[in-house]
Amino acid sequence: MIYFLTGNKGKLYEATEILGAVQELDIDLPEIQDLDPHEVIKAKLKEAQQHHQGEFMVEDTSLSLEAIRGLPGTLIKWFLKSIGTEGIFKLADNEKNYKANALCVIGYSDKSGKTHFFEGRVEGTIVSPRGDSNFGWDPIFVPTGHSKTYAEMGNSEKNQISHRRMALDKLKKYLDNIEI
Amino acid sequence: MIYFLTGNKGKLYEATEILGAVQELDIDLPEIQDLDPHEVIKAKLKEAQQHHQGEFMVEDTSLSLEAIRGLPGTLIKWFLKSIGTEGIFKLADNEKNYKANALCVIGYSDKSGKTHFFEGRVEGTIVSPRGDSNFGWDPIFVPTGHSKTYAEMGNSEKNQISHRRMALDKLKKYLDNIEI
Repeated sequence: MIYFLTGNKGKLYEATEILGAVQELDIDLPEIQDLDPHEVIKAKLKEAQQHHQGEFMVEDTSLSLEAIRGLPGTLIKWFLKSIGTEGIFKLADNEKNYKANALCVIGYSDKSGKTHFFEGRVEGTIVSPRGDSNFGWDPIFVPTGHSKTYAEMGNSEKNQISHRRMALDKLKKYLDNIEI
Repeated sequence: MIYFLTGNKGKLYEATEILGAVQELDIDLPEIQDLDPHEVIKAKLKEAQQHHQGEFMVEDTSLSLEAIRGLPGTLIKWFLKSIGTEGIFKLADNEKNYKANALCVIGYSDKSGKTHFFEGRVEGTIVSPRGDSNFGWDPIFVPTGHSKTYAEMGNSEKNQISHRRMALDKLKKYLDNIEI
């Protein structure tokens, strides 16, 4: 049984659907400041291992805009809190550069404590907010090859193609292989 | 003797000048992600107390731009790393809003482990980079009532009026009183 370090029910549900049995572990782990999601994840897993034993997974999602050289990246939460989706769109619009990518990195620490990373990355375009969503920056991100924002897609449509889905699929493949 | 949790020789020197004896403690403490410097500092002091005993001080400096609703704040390090001083100036320039403030918060944990906070805040204006400096965002910040950027001032001129000086003075006053 893998403990998923998250307080987000949507993420937990998605992980359960793909991986099968996953146990939520909603402990309050601070996120360290670093633009490298691997460092953020390593710090969280290390902290978790001090409190609990077992297999853990933790995910970190970055949204990176070319207009501001990769920011906000791992710091997306604070951009949303301060300037919101409108403000983030404006940062791209000011530079007339709307290129962005969404990156999900999952860190999985196995029973021996070793950490493995799995990544899903989706290129896309930043647009003025469209679609109802309570989920972060979904209203401003259109994946390349699509016309809808993540927020305009239904959950099931989004979860077919999302950066998180890609990372979860890689983790599942890894787990399936080692369990054979 | 107070341990100053820093790896920055300039900050150590300034603190020593004002407070008298201060001991550098250059341990690698991760900074947590939070826009409230008090939270960042509390986490660092808590971590330090797990490794060492005694009195500690730690400082956190924020630069907040009105144009982007208070960002980068505590996240200034990563803005400098990604977009540099030119890029930060541009964020203000795009909005034609150059108002900013520099905030230094010092957390001091006494022998009993209780934490006290001291703040220094300087209002100012963001300008296109001027003046040689290896010190972060000094070339783009002009304190209100002055014409030079922090980087154009000499160290001694800057240290008379800086946000950090103000916070250090308050800490010194506190320490002087409790030692009587």
